Amino acid sequence: MEILNGKLVAESIKEKIKHATQSEFVEKGKSVPVLACIIVGDNPASKVYVASKEKACLSVGFGSIVKVLKEDASESDVIDVIEELNKDESVSGILLQLPLPKGLDERKIISHISPEKDVDGLTEINLGRLFSKRTLVAPCTAIGIIHILEHYGICMEGKNAVVIGRSLLVGKSVASLLEEKNATVTICHSKTTNLEEITKNADILIAAIGKPKFVTADMVKDGAIVVDVGINRTDAGLVGDVDFESVASKVSFITPVPGGVGPMTIAELLSNTLLLHEKAQEARE
Amino acid sequence: MEILNGKLVAESIKEKIKHATQSEFVEKGKSVPVLACIIVGDNPASKVYVASKEKACLSVGFGSIVKVLKEDASESDVIDVIEELNKDESVSGILLQLPLPKGLDERKIISHISPEKDVDGLTEINLGRLFSKRTLVAPCTAIGIIHILEHYGICMEGKNAVVIGRSLLVGKSVASLLEEKNATVTICHSKTTNLEEITKNADILIAAIGKPKFVTADMVKDGAIVVDVGINRTDAGLVGDVDFESVASKVSFITPVPGGVGPMTIAELLSNTLLLHEKAQEARE
Repeated sequence: MEILNGKLVAESIKEKIKHATQSEFVEKGKSVPVLACIIVGDNPASKVYVASKEKACLSVGFGSIVKVLKEDASESDVIDVIEELNKDESVSGILLQLPLPKGLDERKIISHISPEKDVDGLTEINLGRLFSKRTLVAPCTAIGIIHILEHYGICMEGKNAVVIGRSLLVGKSVASLLEEKNATVTICHSKTTNLEEITKNADILIAAIGKPKFVTADMVKDGAIVVDVGINRTDAGLVGDVDFESVASKVSFITPVPGGVGPMTIAELLSNTLLLHEKAQEARE
Repeated sequence: MEILNGKLVAESIKEKIKHATQSEFVEKGKSVPVLACIIVGDNPASKVYVASKEKACLSVGFGSIVKVLKEDASESDVIDVIEELNKDESVSGILLQLPLPKGLDERKIISHISPEKDVDGLTEINLGRLFSKRTLVAPCTAIGIIHILEHYGICMEGKNAVVIGRSLLVGKSVASLLEEKNATVTICHSKTTNLEEITKNADILIAAIGKPKFVTADMVKDGAIVVDVGINRTDAGLVGDVDFESVASKVSFITPVPGGVGPMTIAELLSNTLLLHEKAQEARE
């Protein structure tokens, strides 16, 4: 069994980005990529996430802007901030930290982000590009999973890949990317009737359900590759969607929690920001 | 075994559309839905398809426009025609007949169709809406499959659905719609290594490969529901992707070829045209 060390892969991606930022922009006197994060309300987890994104930006030489809106902000308040950032040429990418406070229509608000600044790849047009294999930017966690598998030389073509969970952010998006890599992909969810039977046939199993230790050893095929997207805060600390202790002994590769998919998500966010910044500069030149 | 009579279901949809056109538009002195088809070059099959779409429009009281471009038309020639139809308020829907002559970039040209006139649901933004369960219009064949299953009271929730083929027009789109109906969906394709093993577990099997009689009895589970999207012209006449004779005896429901999915596609085209026409009128009022 080998650990898929997402932390290490993420560090190497960040190192590349830092180098590119220095040589492509700083040394040439050009403006550096700038990520703008919008946070609405007081969700403590969201604050932690945004702070770590800001820190990551600074660590690779990007600029960072954080826009804080109050818990009772209206849809049009949030949209106004987005429109302002859309217009601001110094901003390369816009990230709306989810979830939003209740009553705000996430999909509607997201649709106002310019597709060319949509670092999360969640606007309809960017999801359509993903779906039709003309991806501009893919949702960060989804593409992070693909990159960690590629880093370890894991071929996806012809493999049976099973994704548990069907969120836009992870499940559906990683399924689309796996299919693009020529895997045979099955998406399972809360209405799946014979989950164990299906997961047992998975060469690659992606767990993105948000339930601590949901995937147990009896659900996993010997020698499978297991990617755990879950980050569940329990009394015992951070726990993934996979029961690592029991599952690890029978698989060929597995991501730990923490230190697996989590760090990849932030690295891909930086990577998407850099990409959109480069595209915008090209368009202006 | 029961035949899923797509021809009959399509007729009942067309009858509804004809009635709605009469009562909502003609009797109220409003403009009726108009479908514009663009055909580029001399593909004989394309000519037949466009002629049958035109005939279908007229049969329900819609207007029909056909724009014919020469085989050597450039991308910008086709885009010019699209832009003109986008602006024309009398046009409710625009259909670009595929395939285009070699050398023309289909996806690029399609991206110029206004999403609000995109009757095939193939623009990036409409695919993104489909992917994120905010469908405006879904590709006609894909939604036709769902409607034929619904017509026969077939519940998709919790069923294992297997789609062979991953085109945007059919495979990927119907997979997304089946997942929205809470089926557990697997997409198989040319790189799938254990196809027969997977199809044998399908409660619902959709064949959209374009290979005559590709699906044989040994690939199908007893009592399965089989939808045949193939329309292959052979010396023996029109043949589906399913070997009907051998498969029919062991399934619970099956679509014939012809008379299954084919007629549904045209009925859904009319249905999408009506929907976009209604939306456009609402937006103007």
